[in-house]
Amino acid sequence: MPDILHRVGIAAPPERVFVALTSLDGLRSWWISEAKGDPRAGGEVDFGFCRMQVTEARPGTRVRWRCVSGPDEWVGTEVVFDLAWTDEQTIVLFRHAGWREPVEFMHHCSTKWATFLLSLRDQLESGAGRPAPRDVKIHVGD
Amino acid sequence: MPDILHRVGIAAPPERVFVALTSLDGLRSWWISEAKGDPRAGGEVDFGFCRMQVTEARPGTRVRWRCVSGPDEWVGTEVVFDLAWTDEQTIVLFRHAGWREPVEFMHHCSTKWATFLLSLRDQLESGAGRPAPRDVKIHVGD
Repeated sequence: MPDILHRVGIAAPPERVFVALTSLDGLRSWWISEAKGDPRAGGEVDFGFCRMQVTEARPGTRVRWRCVSGPDEWVGTEVVFDLAWTDEQTIVLFRHAGWREPVEFMHHCSTKWATFLLSLRDQLESGAGRPAPRDVKIHVGD
Repeated sequence: MPDILHRVGIAAPPERVFVALTSLDGLRSWWISEAKGDPRAGGEVDFGFCRMQVTEARPGTRVRWRCVSGPDEWVGTEVVFDLAWTDEQTIVLFRHAGWREPVEFMHHCSTKWATFLLSLRDQLESGAGRPAPRDVKIHVGD
């Protein structure tokens, strides 16, 4: 099954990146402004267009979600953020795994995730996150 | 074998996108400032860190490259741009295919390709392309 893969480096410690992934204020600052729910291990977050169950949250190391509702292509897929400190930055290795087919929507989501991971970086480095609906647009009408 | 997939929409006709993919001035405006060679069908382009053979160039429809030298992980891989006009924009479906393994460098290249495809979009919509070495940075030291 094909995966969406990304990698960014953030000039901030893994602990701060972890907070941005496991707190509502954090998630609202770089991904979805209207996020609701409980983003800690075992919790569930409502991002409006989808709901994610937090299946793993290891401080400073890894956050893993499972999509429990949302677009058909997303349900059952996993989103994993692996964090590692190296060369004065936190490397975020990102994987949105378990897509059944490499459909056109998967191409779209791959580009969109890149912009959101750079939004995460920009938020942590300079407070310049671009969460939806102020997100970076990637096509006319996005 | 895993692929890098992306999708952007550009408010410009497919013919202009095609020119940006098959001319030196075009490629220099959004990907690599120092590109040299012949980017037409059958030609070969030297992008400095890699060389691409142009295996297909169908006006307004598709451009396909094969990597003939460069990073080990890239040699033998294919880069494909499929173009289609819809909803007042050219949809670019992008695929960098044939990676042997989903290595960390593949994660990096996936994020980087997203920024370059948005550079292509920005160049064609407003002349604001960000080719290397003025490219969007995605980690400290990039």
